[in-house]
Amino acid sequence: MSKKVVIIGGTAAGLSAASRIKKLQPATQVIVFEMTGFISYGSCGLPYFVQGLIDEPFDLVSFTVERIKKERDIIVFDHTKVIDIDDDNKKVLAENLLDGTRWFESFDEIVFATGADAIKPDIQGIDAKGVFFLKNVEDGIQLRSSIRPTGKAVIIGGGMIGLEVAEALSNSGMEVRIVEQLPRLLPAYDPYYSELLMDELNEHNVDLYLNESVVEILTSNGHVSGVRLSSDRILDAELVVVSIGVKPRSSLAAKIGVRTGLKGAIEVDQQMRTNIPYAYACGDCVETVHILNGKKIYMPLGTTANKQGRVCGNTIAGYDDYFPGVLGTNATKVFDLYIASTGLNLDQASHAGFTADLVTIKNNDLASYYPNSEVNHISLIFDKETGQLLGAQAAGSSTIAGRINTLVACVTAKMTIWDLYKLDFLYTPSLAPVYDPLIIAASQAIKKVGR
Amino acid sequence: MSKKVVIIGGTAAGLSAASRIKKLQPATQVIVFEMTGFISYGSCGLPYFVQGLIDEPFDLVSFTVERIKKERDIIVFDHTKVIDIDDDNKKVLAENLLDGTRWFESFDEIVFATGADAIKPDIQGIDAKGVFFLKNVEDGIQLRSSIRPTGKAVIIGGGMIGLEVAEALSNSGMEVRIVEQLPRLLPAYDPYYSELLMDELNEHNVDLYLNESVVEILTSNGHVSGVRLSSDRILDAELVVVSIGVKPRSSLAAKIGVRTGLKGAIEVDQQMRTNIPYAYACGDCVETVHILNGKKIYMPLGTTANKQGRVCGNTIAGYDDYFPGVLGTNATKVFDLYIASTGLNLDQASHAGFTADLVTIKNNDLASYYPNSEVNHISLIFDKETGQLLGAQAAGSSTIAGRINTLVACVTAKMTIWDLYKLDFLYTPSLAPVYDPLIIAASQAIKKVGR
Repeated sequence: MSKKVVIIGGTAAGLSAASRIKKLQPATQVIVFEMTGFISYGSCGLPYFVQGLIDEPFDLVSFTVERIKKERDIIVFDHTKVIDIDDDNKKVLAENLLDGTRWFESFDEIVFATGADAIKPDIQGIDAKGVFFLKNVEDGIQLRSSIRPTGKAVIIGGGMIGLEVAEALSNSGMEVRIVEQLPRLLPAYDPYYSELLMDELNEHNVDLYLNESVVEILTSNGHVSGVRLSSDRILDAELVVVSIGVKPRSSLAAKIGVRTGLKGAIEVDQQMRTNIPYAYACGDCVETVHILNGKKIYMPLGTTANKQGRVCGNTIAGYDDYFPGVLGTNATKVFDLYIASTGLNLDQASHAGFTADLVTIKNNDLASYYPNSEVNHISLIFDKETGQLLGAQAAGSSTIAGRINTLVACVTAKMTIWDLYKLDFLYTPSLAPVYDPLIIAASQAIKKVGR
Repeated sequence: MSKKVVIIGGTAAGLSAASRIKKLQPATQVIVFEMTGFISYGSCGLPYFVQGLIDEPFDLVSFTVERIKKERDIIVFDHTKVIDIDDDNKKVLAENLLDGTRWFESFDEIVFATGADAIKPDIQGIDAKGVFFLKNVEDGIQLRSSIRPTGKAVIIGGGMIGLEVAEALSNSGMEVRIVEQLPRLLPAYDPYYSELLMDELNEHNVDLYLNESVVEILTSNGHVSGVRLSSDRILDAELVVVSIGVKPRSSLAAKIGVRTGLKGAIEVDQQMRTNIPYAYACGDCVETVHILNGKKIYMPLGTTANKQGRVCGNTIAGYDDYFPGVLGTNATKVFDLYIASTGLNLDQASHAGFTADLVTIKNNDLASYYPNSEVNHISLIFDKETGQLLGAQAAGSSTIAGRINTLVACVTAKMTIWDLYKLDFLYTPSLAPVYDPLIIAASQAIKKVGR
């Protein structure tokens, strides 16, 4: 008798799990419940949809409900929320959000790919019209249709999503202000990068309010008209985007006894198993482990979700696989400045017991005489005693992507600064200078270590 | 008493050695002899100077003779050739090529950084006006001044330099034909890449004559007027560029008993020592070792020359260092197609005793919905038994640079295809798809291995 798997959540993690199960065990019945009207979309693309770089919401989508049924034999109920689980009888109670229909669906195994919710600050006016959260495609469609080219916008939160939305609204012609309660942007990076980022925002006329929080959203006839800051300053705004982080959606899982940990995220092993034998979890609703320091970390990200979903599907289908944890690699683009990092930062490295140090270099990304060569800023974090590479941060042109990914490999392989210095990187004037910026960075680290 | 080092050759290797010695042992006297009028230039930039992407020849130069004297206390005699060595009395006989002056210069230690000569085919007409070799800045200046936008050019040799020159001349408006005696371009790559390259040349109206060689250069009044091919076909041309490879300049070294090996290149150890205690060598005139198969290889390249020069200087100054050999990493750009590889190709891997296999994937370099996303072609060469990564080849947009460099790290660290698949690469739509092409390639390799 074939088994039946219910998956709650139909984006990256849920659909990766579903696809993998059907590929390895076609006889298994797989049913996916998705609350929104879109499945398998890349929410990281939403800021680019908002600013019109991507035309249609469906451009963000890999599969429609019809196509995934036809091509992969996966049944998806969209606009459908799982509102309860009967764990004694192993069935979920589903509700179609459009017409209110409810029904029970039985399962042998269940996957929580429930994702994360935008954190909603408990302030007056938060439910007013014109206040947006950017979590799903519907949010993106509404936000895009609310842009008025000469209008004023406030972004609450200067994290990566906040910065991307700031770019999107600014490029759409709006006057944009970012309110960030911390004293600098991207505090996981070295202050050097916060400065570069501030310069970039400045150049594009995005105002930044640091050490400030929004204490009230002002409204007029139910629509946002501005925000009041902790300093009592008032900023006019007809559009407010809240982006102060996300929290894992784990309440449904917790209800049947699934154990949660960091920030309420679901605890899973490397095979994506929870503490309950028939329950699995993957994606933005689970916690993971940092490969370098072995510490639990909550770091929701599209790549991780896809990979965990695949591992989850493999596990359910009886195929040996594991998710090794993350190196904390992350990247974004803010106007013309690309920024990325991997591994531990200086503080994290010190806390993990390393004799950590950091060097930062500035160097052309191509041969200096080659047209359009741009500056790369690269920092290496390393152990002064052993020379072990622990992390890296970079900003500049898009070529930092390849350089950070190279360091992902180096850090994972536990290479030292001397190993990095000896790597036989490619050279041609149109792609790199004769001494690659990574070699320059390694030589600076070697100089600092004095050996 | 301070020692005196004579260095023959003042480009990448020679000046790196000189700079390093003076940095570590300022009291050592360093004298450099350079045959041409330019020192410390990047000859890899010559094709871009020829087509006018780089304005001035001095843009290719890091140092002038005056500046390197002032800033680094290195004495350089340019336009000066070392024509003999008296090894009994440890002195060289130098000749100023401009005025014929000759003098002896004594030394305690000598460095051969003599570089390589363009191979000159023994055919009629090879010395005619309008026949060029592109080895130094003077060659570049002459070639550039000989371009007539509507003229016809023949490139003899379809290697990387030949291809870059073809682009340069074509972009300058000339009608360009390439004659290559092998049945395909870049035979060290998988045939897949030769095809991509042929398509690219086709698109830019560069004609290709494969399986053909030039048997005679036709002249009129001492100036080239065309070439006769081995098939007896005649191609009109007012400009011919010969680029059929280089051979190490090692005759002077051989004269005093320095041992030479592969292709006549000077044999050195990892410290750049020759078999003669006071003689060192580095750069395009030496042979090196391939890191993966331990075989001798002659692979002259700017990066290698710089690094070997530095190691040579370190050795002379008594500072512990080594050159580990090369991974064979190489790269170029032909019109809009970037191409690069590292490690062993399928044949080399098989010959080295591996159970070698290859997979090739085509994938978007950025999120598929992100504007200007382009196709990356990536091949992995790996051992089917152990999964060890042995090499990689890629073509497409400039983003292949970072991906090949990432694989340089992976191959050097002896990672497997499973290790590669698990790496935590960065993700943001403007820099990478959610599954990086490297992950896709690894998954294809895993599928092929079936484990």
